[in-house]
This record gives sequence, structure tokens and C-alpha cells, in this order.
Amino acid sequence: MKKIINDPKRVVDESVAGFAIAHADIVRVVTDPIHVVRADAPIAGKVGIVSGGGSGHEPLHAGYVGFGMLDAAVPGAVFTSPTPDPILAATKAVDGGAGVLHIVKNYTGDVLNFETAAELAGADGIEVRAVVTNDDVAVKDSLYTAGRRGVGGTVLVEKIAGAAAEQGLSLDEVAAVAERVNANARSMGMALTPCTVPHAGEPSFTLAEDEVEIGIGIHGEPGRERIKLEPADKIVDRLLHPILEDLPYASGDRVLLFVNGMGGTPQIELYLAYRRAAEVLAEQGITIERSLVGNYITSLEMQGFSITLLKLDDEMIRYWDAPVQTAALRWGR
Amino acid sequence: MKKIINDPKRVVDESVAGFAIAHADIVRVVTDPIHVVRADAPIAGKVGIVSGGGSGHEPLHAGYVGFGMLDAAVPGAVFTSPTPDPILAATKAVDGGAGVLHIVKNYTGDVLNFETAAELAGADGIEVRAVVTNDDVAVKDSLYTAGRRGVGGTVLVEKIAGAAAEQGLSLDEVAAVAERVNANARSMGMALTPCTVPHAGEPSFTLAEDEVEIGIGIHGEPGRERIKLEPADKIVDRLLHPILEDLPYASGDRVLLFVNGMGGTPQIELYLAYRRAAEVLAEQGITIERSLVGNYITSLEMQGFSITLLKLDDEMIRYWDAPVQTAALRWGR
Repeated sequence: MKKIINDPKRVVDESVAGFAIAHADIVRVVTDPIHVVRADAPIAGKVGIVSGGGSGHEPLHAGYVGFGMLDAAVPGAVFTSPTPDPILAATKAVDGGAGVLHIVKNYTGDVLNFETAAELAGADGIEVRAVVTNDDVAVKDSLYTAGRRGVGGTVLVEKIAGAAAEQGLSLDEVAAVAERVNANARSMGMALTPCTVPHAGEPSFTLAEDEVEIGIGIHGEPGRERIKLEPADKIVDRLLHPILEDLPYASGDRVLLFVNGMGGTPQIELYLAYRRAAEVLAEQGITIERSLVGNYITSLEMQGFSITLLKLDDEMIRYWDAPVQTAALRWGR
Repeated sequence: MKKIINDPKRVVDESVAGFAIAHADIVRVVTDPIHVVRADAPIAGKVGIVSGGGSGHEPLHAGYVGFGMLDAAVPGAVFTSPTPDPILAATKAVDGGAGVLHIVKNYTGDVLNFETAAELAGADGIEVRAVVTNDDVAVKDSLYTAGRRGVGGTVLVEKIAGAAAEQGLSLDEVAAVAERVNANARSMGMALTPCTVPHAGEPSFTLAEDEVEIGIGIHGEPGRERIKLEPADKIVDRLLHPILEDLPYASGDRVLLFVNGMGGTPQIELYLAYRRAAEVLAEQGITIERSLVGNYITSLEMQGFSITLLKLDDEMIRYWDAPVQTAALRWGR
């Protein structure tokens, strides 16, 4: 295992410590139990937004803490849900009296631990609502999930719900926006290579030199099929068509096209994939209103990419464009 | 070779085509000869800034075209300098009557081709100045360079000179700021793995499973030494100490600390390395005023990272903080 680490057991702690120093203008980090909080939290009268999950998907979620997006993120061990304890601490830390929204990717451990934390927060008088993201069309039920997995759409939910909360919407309203984004988002990913969890020390799966995995999850869990490597345009089509057919997206729709790197894929390949996706959407009469291209929800050093489509409405576009000031997404302020 | 590409010969063209669609609000792309221009160029009375070089280092340079940074970028083939022709076309496209600054990384091909383009532009009545970046302390003279190589410091030169130009400084003044940033920046990198140039089809070098290369260049060209893999903190020290001793940086200095990923390194490792660098700087009485952590000057899918230090003054900080609106760096507007 070749990694820039010291001790596999200290990877998350040491990385979050670096993050805290680098972004001290945006966040503060509480180390016991570990959670990352917006520097100016809690904000009186604003709905607080908390997300979290296993580490190894950076910049998700700590990279999205800040003005206009998340109020707190709770990093678990690599690919392992955080326990209820830090989720509860984060929930309390961001409660400004208007309630707290939990944004939870649909993995069994995350859902259970966020639920437990929400119950405990409720007992303390904090109103908590949860939105569970499940945008991955590749598989129904998987190694870690009942139902569909939450993947790239989660980033879009966090940005858009974050803007809605920043603009003063109520907990019910922010939760409704988040649900609407999730309901209109679909994703699918693929991998060229596996990744290695530091404390495991071995790759989580193997692929032959000419094989790729279509429909991969963000923890390297199996997808739909293993095929021989194909040209990029064919691979894009394999991801995009199941997405298009699922909602379904139709001619006249306005979308956000999000091409996401899995961590180890160079940007030159992501934009090459984006080009083909844009071509297919143009052929189908679907208009790309907004784009996001880069490493936003990753699987350590895995090479591969995912495509997420979000069907937009005017309100979503307004919230997408709204100012955001986080380590990983920043504009307009 | 496992890559998300169609035809190795079309990688740059197809990727830039995707970039053009994704960022049509910021840039326009001219395809023959290929160059990427700020959407609102030329801007009358503003110094134009052009950079460029071989592709494969994305987001460098096209990702930095936009308000407050570059006016144009000229992408060559992967790891290959662009010819004078597109550099000349880009220079003409951004000339707003106040002259044009070329920011050139110190590689023999780039320097020659930018010089030729500058002469041709001069013959057409455009005043051109060039700043050659050479911040890599690892080696003097290399496979592609006489003198030191231009690496991470280039990103900082582009941002800070870009802000100076945006604020209306003259060509001489913008060039002086760029020279000052380069003179106060030092970098060194390392690699865990090689990378594969698409049209070569084979890795550019090999490393044993327990070996890393210290002082690597951004084209995989050899560094200072090949050693056994060590803990992250030791590797950071190996990169940071030669940097600190070179300028030298001293107690009381204020710096920008830039930890850059080579393309295939997950963010969790970059922040872990950042943590150790921050610790060493604190021990030496050097204050981190600004930070940048992420994939900003890469070598395709190579795993590894580099550290760049920039000794700051008040003017540099002001220009660093100034608004920027590019595909890869965006804030404050």
C-alpha cells in the first residue's frame, strides 16, 4: 500500500487537523467527538444543516461546510459511518433555534446512526428532519444499502438546500427543497481501478488490466457489470442512458450536468467525458443550464468517474447560483 | 493503458471541447490554432496575460482563464510545448492596447516557442514581456530544462499577476509583480506512482512497490533520489527543508503554503501532508497567512504531491485575495 500517511489509524484525525488549519477562516474543528463546524455557528434563526458519513470521499462533506452550504460535517473512519455521538454533537453545535436538517446518504449505517442522533437531539428539544439521498440508478440494494445508494446527487442537495437555509427558509421548506433535488437527481459511476482503505492495506477489489466496473459504488462495492475497457464515448453512453431513462429526463428539460472524478482520474479525462455527455443531451433536446466538473465525491485514489443529472427548476437554479463560501465550492461572495 | 479516452491523438482536442461547453460563461475556445480565451477578451486598456504549455497538468493553464487571472491559455499536446503559432494567436486575441505578459514555465521548448511568438507579436506592434517561472528547488538542469523547472509557483504568479493586471497596472508593473512572486516562491515535489502519456501508452518510468521519487518533475522526469516509502511526516520534511533553506525563509516571514496534488492523490492525503508542513513552519516561527490545498498543477494520474512556499508582502496578499472567476479558482465575486 503506497499512501502519504503516517499511521493508518490516524489518517482521518491528521487529515482533518490539516483541514482545520488550512481553512480556519471558514471552519472550526472539534476533536472529541470529531466534527467540523462552520466558524460562525450557530446562526440564530437559521436552519442548521448537518451531513456526514465515512471519510475517503473528500471533499465530501467537510469541504462543503461554510456560508451557503453545510453548517457541520461529521467524518467517520474511512468508509465507515460516524457514530450517533458526534452527529448529536454537531446537531447541537449548529442549532440556532430554527431546527436542523440532516442530509444522509442512503447507507444502512449512516441512516441508523443519524436516526439515533436525531432522536437524542429531539429529546433535547431540537427539531430535526432528515433527507436521505438515493440517486444512484446502478443497483437496487447493495453491500451497504437497502434501496438505492446516495452518491453525486448529495453534493447538489447540500448546495441547494444550503442556499435555501441561508436565505431564511423554514425547516419544512428547506427539507422540501432538499427532497425535490434528490427526487430530480440521478447518477451512475464507473471505475478503472480499485482503491485501498488505509486500515485494510489491500485493494477492496481487483480488476484485470483490460477490465472496468460499470455502476460502481463509492466504496468500491460492486456495480452492474464488469466489461472490457471501451472508448470513453461508449462508457459515457453506458452511464448516461440508464440515468436518462430512469426519471425519465425528456426533451425540453433543463439540467445541471455533473461529471465527477472518483479521486484518481485526471481532469483532462473528466472534461473529455463531459464533452460526450453534452453531445448526447443536445441530441435529446435537453438543455444544460449549469455544469460541475471535478472531484467532488470521491473514493480515495480510485480512478473512474460518475455522471449526475439534476432536472432544474427556476428555484433550484437560483439556489445553485447563490453565494457559497466553503473549502471546496466557492463563488459569488 | 487504462484511461477514459477515445483516441490518444484526440485527447487534448476532445477535452478542451468539453471544457469549452462546461465553462462557456467564462471562456471561448478557438480550435485552429487551439487556444482558450477569456470570453470578454480583449479588454481595452488592460494588460493581457497569456500562459500555456504542454497539456496533462490540468487545471493549469486553461482552468485559470477568466476575470482576475489569465486572458488566454495555450494547451500543447500532452507534455509537449505548444508551437509559436497558437501562442501568437492568443497574444493577438488578448491585446487590449496595453501590452501582453507571457507567463512561461522554464522548459526549453516552452521558452523558445513563447520567445518566437513574442517576436512575431512585436513585429505586429504588440508589446510583449515574458516572465519565466523557475521555482523548483529539486534539480538544476533536467531532461527538459536548463536551470530550474517552473512548477507550483506558476499558479501563484498567474493569480497574483492576474489581479494586478485586472486592477489596471501597466505592463512593466504587472511584469515586476510576477517576477517578485516567482523570486519569492520555492517548490519541491514527490511521486508514489508514474503516469502514462496517452500517445506513449506506457508509464514514463517505473517505481518499485515500496519506492517513491523525491524531487520529481511534473512530466515524471527524474528528481533528486529514489527512496523507500516513508511515513508522510518524513516525506514532508524531505520536501520542505530544501525549500526553507533555499530562499531562505526565516522566522517572522509570512507565507502562502500551497500543498498540491499531482492528479491521482486523494485529498485526505494532501491535508495530512499540509498538517505536517504547518507544524514545521510553526516551529520555525513562520506564519501561514494564506493556504491552497488541492490539484492545481498535475501530471495526469500521477500519485504524489508538491509543496510550494511563497513569501508574502502586503501587496501580494491584496492581489491574492482579489476576486477571481475562473473554472478552477473562484472567489470574491
